[in-house]
Amino acid sequence: MIQVYTGNGKGKTTASLGLALRALGHDMKVCIIQFMKGSDDYGEIMMAGKLSNLTVKQFGRKEFVDRENPEPSDFEYASKGLSFAKDAIKNGLYNIVILDEINVAIDFKLVRLSDVLSLIGEKPADIELIVTGRNAPQELIDIADLVTEMKEIKHPYTSGIPSRKGIEY
Amino acid sequence: MIQVYTGNGKGKTTASLGLALRALGHDMKVCIIQFMKGSDDYGEIMMAGKLSNLTVKQFGRKEFVDRENPEPSDFEYASKGLSFAKDAIKNGLYNIVILDEINVAIDFKLVRLSDVLSLIGEKPADIELIVTGRNAPQELIDIADLVTEMKEIKHPYTSGIPSRKGIEY
Repeated sequence: MIQVYTGNGKGKTTASLGLALRALGHDMKVCIIQFMKGSDDYGEIMMAGKLSNLTVKQFGRKEFVDRENPEPSDFEYASKGLSFAKDAIKNGLYNIVILDEINVAIDFKLVRLSDVLSLIGEKPADIELIVTGRNAPQELIDIADLVTEMKEIKHPYTSGIPSRKGIEY
Repeated sequence: MIQVYTGNGKGKTTASLGLALRALGHDMKVCIIQFMKGSDDYGEIMMAGKLSNLTVKQFGRKEFVDRENPEPSDFEYASKGLSFAKDAIKNGLYNIVILDEINVAIDFKLVRLSDVLSLIGEKPADIELIVTGRNAPQELIDIADLVTEMKEIKHPYTSGIPSRKGIEY
């Protein structure tokens, strides 16, 4: 099955991490591939060090990607992430594969939508694929089985509170 | 801070579980109190057996609560859940307390909104409180710092697919 979590509200990545937690409870194997993220201070990275059934790989820089002017390394990271994802979907090691923020990588044109769609087309039926990030393309929504839009009703960032360890990352 | 995840789409409980996973990665202590749920086959219950910093307590029956005709035990469970939550918020053992599906318990009148609001009023400032469930009351949204509405765009249940272990629970 293919699940998409999109929208401008908080809870997209965490919903995928919660799915991971549940599956890990049932002794399933989970691979989380994070696009446009590159910081080992994330709680999920630390959990991967503690839980043998959890793999988390980041493909990005620490800094935000400039949408109007991405660096060459942004494209390289995204391309490597996509190759890694292709392997994770096909190598038979995982029950669940999460492509975190890949919608944003598509939106920023770091990866091509057609490449993501063909990767999804090669997915074995028994693998659960989770796709997150705002601005999910309509083509992805069309082929997904489950789509939730996380809609921001209230957010503390707007009142200038910085992101907090253990909560936002 | 107080976070509310509401709406009719999938991802409310899992968003809270993902917050838990992140916090556990940072060696924080998390208490998840689940209202109207009573099944030890949930992945999060199994994870609590594996992770010493994670506590999960369920206050409910296995069966769905009949909104029009709740059983006496439904009220008892909900009331015990609320007492447990009060203690979890005050005993200094946890960094994060999750009141899963408490919005539904309020909506079904198993607990009184005023009791939940007074519990929240007693919360120490350094505890992160997460509240989930559809139909969050406006009073809760008003006092929350962060609110996301999970909006259903597509859901496979509507096509008759049953809920799956490791994915939906």
